[in-house]
Formats: sequence, C-alpha cells, structure tokens
Amino acid sequence: MAGISLDQARTIIRAALESGRGLNLKPLSVVVLDAGGHVQAFEREDGAAPGRFAIAHGKAYGAVMLGMAGTAQMARAESQSYFMAAVNGVYGGQVVPVPGGVLVRDSSGDVIGAVGVTGDTSDNDAAAAVTGTEAAGLHGEI
Amino acid sequence: MAGISLDQARTIIRAALESGRGLNLKPLSVVVLDAGGHVQAFEREDGAAPGRFAIAHGKAYGAVMLGMAGTAQMARAESQSYFMAAVNGVYGGQVVPVPGGVLVRDSSGDVIGAVGVTGDTSDNDAAAAVTGTEAAGLHGEI
Amino acid sequence: MAGISLDQARTIIRAALESGRGLNLKPLSVVVLDAGGHVQAFEREDGAAPGRFAIAHGKAYGAVMLGMAGTAQMARAESQSYFMAAVNGVYGGQVVPVPGGVLVRDSSGDVIGAVGVTGDTSDNDAAAAVTGTEAAGLHGEI
Amino acid sequence: MAGISLDQARTIIRAALESGRGLNLKPLSVVVLDAGGHVQAFEREDGAAPGRFAIAHGKAYGAVMLGMAGTAQMARAESQSYFMAAVNGVYGGQVVPVPGGVLVRDSSGDVIGAVGVTGDTSDNDAAAAVTGTEAAGLHGEI
Repeated sequence: MAGISLDQARTIIRAALESGRGLNLKPLSVVVLDAGGHVQAFEREDGAAPGRFAIAHGKAYGAVMLGMAGTAQMARAESQSYFMAAVNGVYGGQVVPVPGGVLVRDSSGDVIGAVGVTGDTSDNDAAAAVTGTEAAGLHGEI
Repeated sequence: MAGISLDQARTIIRAALESGRGLNLKPLSVVVLDAGGHVQAFEREDGAAPGRFAIAHGKAYGAVMLGMAGTAQMARAESQSYFMAAVNGVYGGQVVPVPGGVLVRDSSGDVIGAVGVTGDTSDNDAAAAVTGTEAAGLHGEI
Repeated sequence: MAGISLDQARTIIRAALESGRGLNLKPLSVVVLDAGGHVQAFEREDGAAPGRFAIAHGKAYGAVMLGMAGTAQMARAESQSYFMAAVNGVYGGQVVPVPGGVLVRDSSGDVIGAVGVTGDTSDNDAAAAVTGTEAAGLHGEI
Repeated sequence: MAGISLDQARTIIRAALESGRGLNLKPLSVVVLDAGGHVQAFEREDGAAPGRFAIAHGKAYGAVMLGMAGTAQMARAESQSYFMAAVNGVYGGQVVPVPGGVLVRDSSGDVIGAVGVTGDTSDNDAAAAVTGTEAAGLHGEI
C-alpha cells in the first residue's frame, strides 16, 4: 500500500502552517493520518488552544474512515444529523464533520491518508490543508 | 509557568459566591481550571444540587480546550449543533456549551485558565464568574 | 441528612494544606466529597502535578461509595486484586484504593462524606486528611 | 506562559529520531506534550507500527499528569500494580507506565511538559527522549 511518508507529512504540515502565517490566520494545528486513520505527524502552533489536537484529528479521522472529505460530511450532517451522530457512535465519537478534514489521494486516485486542520474558520482550515497537500505533490479533496 | 495561583483561584471563587449572595441568586458552584483544563479549585454552596461540579467543570473545560468562551460556544451550538456534538465526542462528553464558562486572560491577553459557574441562569452565572475574575485582577471573557 | 457544610469543607482543606506545609510535604491536593460521593470543595497547591484532582477524587470516592476508608481498600487490593478491579468496573474506574481516602463521620458515627488527599506518600496524605477532618470537629477514619 | 514552544518540540523530535538512526534502533515515534498534557507535536517514522501514537502519548501523558517519569511509574506498577491500574481508571486508560515517558523541566526545575518515545526497548526509548530534550536545552527526567 502506497502511503504518506514522514517526509511528505512534514512537507504538508510546514506548507499548511506557512500558508496560515502568510494569510494572517489564527494559530493552526495540523495532523496527518495514514490510510488506516493512524497519526503520522502533528504540529500545533504556539498560541493555539490546548485541545486542538482532538479537533484536527477528528476532522481527518472521519475523512479516512468514511472515505468522505469534510465538506461532504458537513452536507450530510446538515441534511441527516442523526446519520453523523450514528457514525460517531460506531467510531467512538472521534469524527468532527466539518471542512478542514481533507482526503489525500495519490496520482492513481487512491486514498493514502488525510489531513486535518483547525484554528481559523473551517473554510480557511480546509484551504490551508489543500495548500499543504499540494506542496507534497499530492491531491487534496476538501 | 504563569497561570492562576491557588490564592487567585480562592479570590475568584469567594468573590463569585459573594456576588451571588449579594444578588440573591440560587446557590452557586464555581470551578477554576488552569491553562491545561485541569482543576485548580472548586466550591459548591450549601443547598446546590449534588451534580453541580460536572456542570461547572463542563462550562470551563470547553472554554479552555477550544479557546472559546461559553457565549461563543452557545452561538456555535445554535448554528451548528452537530459541530458541538462532535466536539463533545472528541473531548469525552466533558463540554457544556452555554454562558458561565469564562476564559481568563492575563494582562498580555494570554489564556491562563477558565472559570465555570452554575446554579442560576446562564447569564447570571457568567456575570458572577466575571465578578470573581476581576476581583483577582484578571480579565474574564464571557 | 446531616452533611459537610461548605464552611466545614473549607476548614478541612485549609487545615490539611497547612499541616502539609508545617511538615514540609510535597504540594498537596485535597478534595471533600459529600455523603453521596459528590464534590463539595477542592484545592490544589501551586506546584502540584495537573492530574492530582482525579487522584484525590478517586481516593475519597471509593471511601464513600464502599463505606470503606483507603487503608482497608488497600488491604483488600493486596489480598484480592480482582475484587478491587471489579469494584472499579462497577464504579466506572473512579476508585483509587490507597491511604489518603478518609471517611468522615459525625458525632453519631454516621458517614457524612470523605476527604481525599494526594501529593506526598500515601501515609502522609492520610495524616493530612485526618488533621483537616479533626480541625472541623469531625472524625476521620483512615 | 512558559512552556515548550513548537520550535523546541521540533528540535526534540528531530534529535530523538536522529539518535535512533545513529544507534540503528527500530523505527521510533516521538510525542511532545505541554504542561497540561496536551499534544504539541508528534512524528512517527516510516516503518513504525500504526498504533504507536497511542503508546508514545501514554508514556508522556502519565508523566505530566502524575508529575512522575516513566521509570518511577514502572517501579510503582511493579510494587503496587493495583495502584497504577486505578490511576489508569481515573485517567481514562491513557497511561503507559514504562520508561520512555520523560518529564521535561526548565532551568527553574518546573515541569513544562513531557516527551514520549516508543519503538525500541523501553530503555533505548528513554535515552532517545533524553537526547532530544537536551538538544533543546531542557532537562529530561527519565
């Protein structure tokens, strides 16, 4: 199984954080998960609230586990909140269904992991995640 | 580490409880958490219901972990109930997203903890928390 | 039901902390629970580790819920570790069965709550809890 | 708030991983927690098992929450297994009481966080954590 290497994960995180600084976003936190939903790397900027790991993780975890990025999860939560509540039941409450959870695909279109960003608005979080993903030569689906 | 000392926490709690007595509020419970969301001090007035620790804690805990005070949490819960439900999933159900959870900042604006008050209306709880916070020379964000 | 008033809880906590300072113990954390095992008051001294609330609470909670002080719980854990493991199953993992969890009785011998102390050795913790309890005119069973 | 900055956390992680490569250890995973036990940064080397975040986290989390490094936790687990089992009850099963959980202190001796390393033997994990901590000009207690 192809996957996200630690070098790629570092590139994703650094590029996402730099894009946040460039746009003067609030302090960001960025997690990279592998194709099995397991943590590969994470960084939380100085000044971010202490609980941001769990939010970043929850955005990325739902994306990998469902094969559905944050925007699609949010749409489902808006139309069928009981479905996303049930999803959280089976996944132990670990899913945060809003933009900022980005599915990462390789050149064949296979999902090889996910990126979760939190700290600013959900849309800005998602944009930073995509910037990071593309810096590593990968495709991010918001 | 800068933070809320035990002496400051005592001042916050006493002033909050005294303000409640002065306004003839229902019996209050007041918790002070540190910058990591850990309990520094707590008092529950005679006559308060037995479960009030968890409510006070939940108001303050969400404030610290998200870096977002109770009023902002309530607004998010009103507009995106599934988001705050998901937040509670990743934080183990420990967040009570209503006013009365007050972020405490030092003179530099850094979050150094939170105060949670419960027992009367949410707005009165929040006002008591701010009275306590200001008595300790700190800034409370409702 | 007679109980521990907030004034008594404050006396217990202050006397326990002062005894710790007098004996040059490590920073202590002290919780007072009511007869139903619910938190009445808590203080954590500056310099104590952040997780000390849960340990203090666990010592006192087991004492109230089982009607058995910390020393007796430890003896049971030494002789029948599976029993205390099972106790923690039914009480949600909230029991810490070592000295420092002190049952509080009124003049009739009725249990009206418990005190939990943590920070130094278990025996020193228990002694500080008894000093606090007696300062409030109550009887502490270690 | 004094603490471990993201720059320091990066230095700790890189130096710990480089020391592992220099000693030909198995692939390592390294987490840095702040003074409240919250994740600041994490990296898992290519080839490490997927579940290594939780082990690294559990080593560091217990160190911060108890104010007790992994070696001392292991000694306590050896002499009083029911105590560490109870500790895990109150901390939600998040503590892994073996070497590799290193308390990080600043020049005043105050705990400002912890490092958790997993992947090789517990002793090698602890040594890598100390190497990383010292590279950042901080003191690591094993």
